Amino acid sequence: MKIPVVKQILNANDQVAADNRALFDQLGVFVVNLMASPGAGKTSVILATTARLPQNVRSGVIEGDLASTIDADTIAARNIPVVQINTGGNCHLDAPMIRSALANLSLETIDLLFIENVGNLVCPAEFKLGANIAVVIASAPEGHDKPYKYPGMFAVADAVLLNKADLLQVFDFDVDYFRRGIEIVNPDAPLFPLSCRTGAGVDAWMSWLLERYAEFVEDRKQSAVM
Amino acid sequence: MKIPVVKQILNANDQVAADNRALFDQLGVFVVNLMASPGAGKTSVILATTARLPQNVRSGVIEGDLASTIDADTIAARNIPVVQINTGGNCHLDAPMIRSALANLSLETIDLLFIENVGNLVCPAEFKLGANIAVVIASAPEGHDKPYKYPGMFAVADAVLLNKADLLQVFDFDVDYFRRGIEIVNPDAPLFPLSCRTGAGVDAWMSWLLERYAEFVEDRKQSAVM
Repeated sequence: MKIPVVKQILNANDQVAADNRALFDQLGVFVVNLMASPGAGKTSVILATTARLPQNVRSGVIEGDLASTIDADTIAARNIPVVQINTGGNCHLDAPMIRSALANLSLETIDLLFIENVGNLVCPAEFKLGANIAVVIASAPEGHDKPYKYPGMFAVADAVLLNKADLLQVFDFDVDYFRRGIEIVNPDAPLFPLSCRTGAGVDAWMSWLLERYAEFVEDRKQSAVM
Repeated sequence: MKIPVVKQILNANDQVAADNRALFDQLGVFVVNLMASPGAGKTSVILATTARLPQNVRSGVIEGDLASTIDADTIAARNIPVVQINTGGNCHLDAPMIRSALANLSLETIDLLFIENVGNLVCPAEFKLGANIAVVIASAPEGHDKPYKYPGMFAVADAVLLNKADLLQVFDFDVDYFRRGIEIVNPDAPLFPLSCRTGAGVDAWMSWLLERYAEFVEDRKQSAVM
């Protein structure tokens, strides 16, 4: 008698994340998981980025916070479709929360979906959501030692933004030391120093992001042909 | 037959926290649990505070980080007894970690022990360590909305420090809005805007802290008499 052996490949969260990703792929939505410390500028990055998108790339946002709708209100004021997830006490978003939020978003009208995770440089790194890329935002006031202290977060980043870079000197921020800290755990992740306030450096990040988006669109075309 | 009913009052962590506290009380060590976002200035607050302590109040430090000994090195350079806890991936300190760290500290030579928790505005709030007071450090660059977004952390604070207050204007930080956010969840917690860099406001925090310490010393004397 042959005994069936079931290998558990994905945990519950990752299974839902894979389902989310399949849905995003089907509908042609490119998804960015934005992670950072509290107050690093996740919402500011979303606003700076969406304001510079070509008109044919329509954005949407899922906001994650323990409480309040402060960030969602800010996004909605720009007429961008947005859903707020309040996690209660939970320190991170997870894939089922994203699945629930999707019921309140018209994915058919969105090309680029930003998920703003809970402000936390530890826990969100461990939970896949179904996004195409993970972007970690650090900021000058936090100091240049963060990659050394929170290596897990920087290890999962497809790109790192260094926000509030107009204030690097005020905080004696050593960009080379910061960069070396990232390279130890993640040698391939590009680093984009920028300032959402002044706009400096935002274009380089936009170019990188739009290249990733273009690759995604191209991949879908190829898949449709095959 | 009478059936014995055992009521579970403390969970495992809180039991160890109570044991830690009993040991601290026995040895006359007043303990401060410092919690904050990454980069808010926990180590800077410890340095600014210890530098201003009266000579008869001897300090010690337990540093918590996921990785590295960066903060412990900084403290040790000031000749303050310090132990570094590396949590691995763990997003907070817990009471057993503190218990383990105590084996490497001469508590008999310490009057005021600072525990610098992992930089995280969510998880550390849920784990008692055995400290006498919990102090939450926010900072101007993080923005004035943090108490609304992370109410659980501000709810457990015995006092809130607002660090980098020399930069309030740079970050359009509305102190009244911030204060109201704290009052919603924690009406009794005093707020101390200060700057570790300039030293402004540090004295008010020191006065409050040394009052708490004096109360602790007085309570122990009373207990000894009884």
